[in-house]
Amino acid sequence: MVDKKTKSWSGCPVRFGMSQFGDKWSFLIIRDLMFKHRKYYHEFLSAGEGISTNILAARLLDLELNGIIDKSVDPIKGSRFIYALTSKGLDLMPMMLAMMDWSEKYDDDTEVPKEFIGKLRNDLAGLKSEILKGLTK
Amino acid sequence: MVDKKTKSWSGCPVRFGMSQFGDKWSFLIIRDLMFKHRKYYHEFLSAGEGISTNILAARLLDLELNGIIDKSVDPIKGSRFIYALTSKGLDLMPMMLAMMDWSEKYDDDTEVPKEFIGKLRNDLAGLKSEILKGLTK
Repeated sequence: MVDKKTKSWSGCPVRFGMSQFGDKWSFLIIRDLMFKHRKYYHEFLSAGEGISTNILAARLLDLELNGIIDKSVDPIKGSRFIYALTSKGLDLMPMMLAMMDWSEKYDDDTEVPKEFIGKLRNDLAGLKSEILKGLTK
Repeated sequence: MVDKKTKSWSGCPVRFGMSQFGDKWSFLIIRDLMFKHRKYYHEFLSAGEGISTNILAARLLDLELNGIIDKSVDPIKGSRFIYALTSKGLDLMPMMLAMMDWSEKYDDDTEVPKEFIGKLRNDLAGLKSEILKGLTK
């Protein structure tokens, strides 16, 4: 049933997703903005995953052009930019949370706080609104 | 609140996910297996996205080594292999469906059948079990 229908998808939603954020660096930048309250270029650079400056600059520009993040002058220090997820970017939260849920299940080394994972599995709406509140305060 | 907790994640679930399937080709192979009933090497190769033979072979091996897909001798034609998602791979369905939901919302060219998207948004459990049934029949 599903097969016949999906075969006709001319504009594939997975392909579209991959064209918008389809490499690991983009996922890690989205993670930084969504869950780690990072918002400056130097914070992404020093996040510990070893992204190079040219890849980081390219991915930030891609994400901005795709409308997933916004770049604005930092009101505190005018010489630097501040990055934030747009509503389109924030709407990636269910996908990111589903990935985290999966990793927590299958990777012994993944350490997600019990409280976070508990909410993710039992009170997803509450967790989402808590994260959103934290991002906009 | 969330910030302080997530900062302490030593084993990051997003990084783990990326280490398991973190490039667009892996996502497209998972999509083929999960939603398009493709299961043979030549079917992935001719899926229209232009993957090269060496990349496809490398990604299939990665996914197999990571326990996301299984490779077995095709019972119908012993000279070829048949690929299938493991239960670990099938558990990526919520993440894949969340991505598809997002793409359908943000991309005018994404064409997901109305019935599929309706189920995805209103009867997720029913949709999942329908897809699983289609895969195991």
